[in-house]
Amino acid sequence: MARRAGGGQSGEERLIARHFKPLARSPGAFDLTDDAAVLRHPRGHEMVLTVDAIVAGVHFFADDPPDAVARKALRVNLSDLAAKAATPAGFLLTLALPKSIGDGWLKIFTRALGSDATRFGCPLLGGDTVFTPGPLTISIAAFGTVPIGAMVRRAGARPGDHVVVTGTIGDAALGLKLKTDPAAARRWRLGAKERRDLIQRYLVPEPRNALAEAIREFASAAMDVSDGLVGDFDKLCRASAVAAEIEAEQVPLSKGARAALTADRKLLANLLTGGDDYEIVATVPPAKIEALEAAAKAAHVPLSRIGRVTKGRGARFVDGRGRRLGFAQASFSHF
Amino acid sequence: MARRAGGGQSGEERLIARHFKPLARSPGAFDLTDDAAVLRHPRGHEMVLTVDAIVAGVHFFADDPPDAVARKALRVNLSDLAAKAATPAGFLLTLALPKSIGDGWLKIFTRALGSDATRFGCPLLGGDTVFTPGPLTISIAAFGTVPIGAMVRRAGARPGDHVVVTGTIGDAALGLKLKTDPAAARRWRLGAKERRDLIQRYLVPEPRNALAEAIREFASAAMDVSDGLVGDFDKLCRASAVAAEIEAEQVPLSKGARAALTADRKLLANLLTGGDDYEIVATVPPAKIEALEAAAKAAHVPLSRIGRVTKGRGARFVDGRGRRLGFAQASFSHF
Repeated sequence: MARRAGGGQSGEERLIARHFKPLARSPGAFDLTDDAAVLRHPRGHEMVLTVDAIVAGVHFFADDPPDAVARKALRVNLSDLAAKAATPAGFLLTLALPKSIGDGWLKIFTRALGSDATRFGCPLLGGDTVFTPGPLTISIAAFGTVPIGAMVRRAGARPGDHVVVTGTIGDAALGLKLKTDPAAARRWRLGAKERRDLIQRYLVPEPRNALAEAIREFASAAMDVSDGLVGDFDKLCRASAVAAEIEAEQVPLSKGARAALTADRKLLANLLTGGDDYEIVATVPPAKIEALEAAAKAAHVPLSRIGRVTKGRGARFVDGRGRRLGFAQASFSHF
Repeated sequence: MARRAGGGQSGEERLIARHFKPLARSPGAFDLTDDAAVLRHPRGHEMVLTVDAIVAGVHFFADDPPDAVARKALRVNLSDLAAKAATPAGFLLTLALPKSIGDGWLKIFTRALGSDATRFGCPLLGGDTVFTPGPLTISIAAFGTVPIGAMVRRAGARPGDHVVVTGTIGDAALGLKLKTDPAAARRWRLGAKERRDLIQRYLVPEPRNALAEAIREFASAAMDVSDGLVGDFDKLCRASAVAAEIEAEQVPLSKGARAALTADRKLLANLLTGGDDYEIVATVPPAKIEALEAAAKAAHVPLSRIGRVTKGRGARFVDGRGRRLGFAQASFSHF
């Protein structure tokens, strides 16, 4: 965080002292006054490393509330750690700031970032703040710990395993549509609260870190759903060299998503292939499914069975009568 | 690296398979086919974490050779690890790519990145590739290991310590000037080779990882010089709560820098406050200075004594007659 600074206490140093130092509560962050941070894992453990970047105008709207942007930037990484069964340990922040981002924006941004860092036990360890003539860009590298070899992989699913998913699917995709096409709320016959909830789900993911330990104990494979359930779960199946049959009607939907789907059946594809869910999809051996469900209940994380793993290759989604559903595009992509 | 991917094997996944997978030789990278990587430090050690971002048009020129951009992006981080006395262990890469970056560019970029990763023992562990409507932006989070508590800090310098710096100072600042003002080469009476060498020093830093172990053994404090020797070393003094007197004439200069300075004495400020040196400045107790010099010689890293630490606060630069030098701006800043 202490690089490319202006002379004396100016430029980046002032930014750091004012906005970021309060977040760097880990002793290994050295109050952001050194070139690097230190972090160690407990003996018999290892570090799980992940990085995710979000760009204004691509992954969020430039006028999204700064606190929502902060939470999203950190939470998309926390979601990865959760799905990999890791306990959060800290993060590094890269901020590429356009001139338009002022002190007021940063104040709200860093306050929310600090609040989430505390809530999820994932302190700021360091970072780099640079100027950009382009859009605001935030990259976070997040670190967690697991017992050696215990990171839950995409590979590991076995025929016969149950397929489960946390929370509800598709809300963020609808939330994004509602932001760009406000008239959709009426077409979908949404109440004001349903509309707000869907948009909120797009703005601020709810990572499932409370379930990480149970995933480690009971899941054979897992990943976080960030680019659409259909495409992401297909990746898990391919990494595991298995097939799976998912019953689309079992995929958990929120009240708002259910209302929208009732109004427009064609939205099913959006729900199942839209991005930004940040839920966990996992496969679980039959002998462990009830234990996982009990753990999820205890952790207050909704968990739904949506299908079974079979022999073969790749995920099939079927409707209530067992007919295979086709999707023009399996995943959400910015490319 | 496996996020925000396009449907099937398209978009980001294709990029990864084609360009980045060959670099991910660490088993903990899982061939970039999972959501996260794993990494562990030896027992009795800890991880040193650093992150640095570079933006086209800010930290490098959009038309700089892709191999130079790759090396710079990684090496600015390797330089931090070297100055902190850490042994490189791996890195995470965030690439925000504008549409103008094509396959040909990426091929050269990733090949050079892989070559440096091998040379410095710092493999690619994972990353995220996102689209940006703005300039190419590269953020690298790099990890090294040190024995617990052995990271060399900015704090730690004591009155009486020698001040040393590796390599030569100011070349990159002149190289940058030569890129933006080619006529300067004639004013400074530079030969073609000197001109090329200075520009090369701007394009591709030479991090001093070969000296990391000796820094750990012999230095009381250290940091890498990235924003100008004057401002950076002043930060080290303030972090250590000491003062220091640096003899400007002892600051090591390359042949090209010396020629330019002879032609234009006013360049001294540019040399001492310009950015992008990526050398190490360190303080060393008198009892250890000769051992460090011997280690530097053995590692083929040029090392020069440039001053002494004293009581007080902050760094003073003096000329050959002991007169204090003033600088309008102590550090290079993009803000």
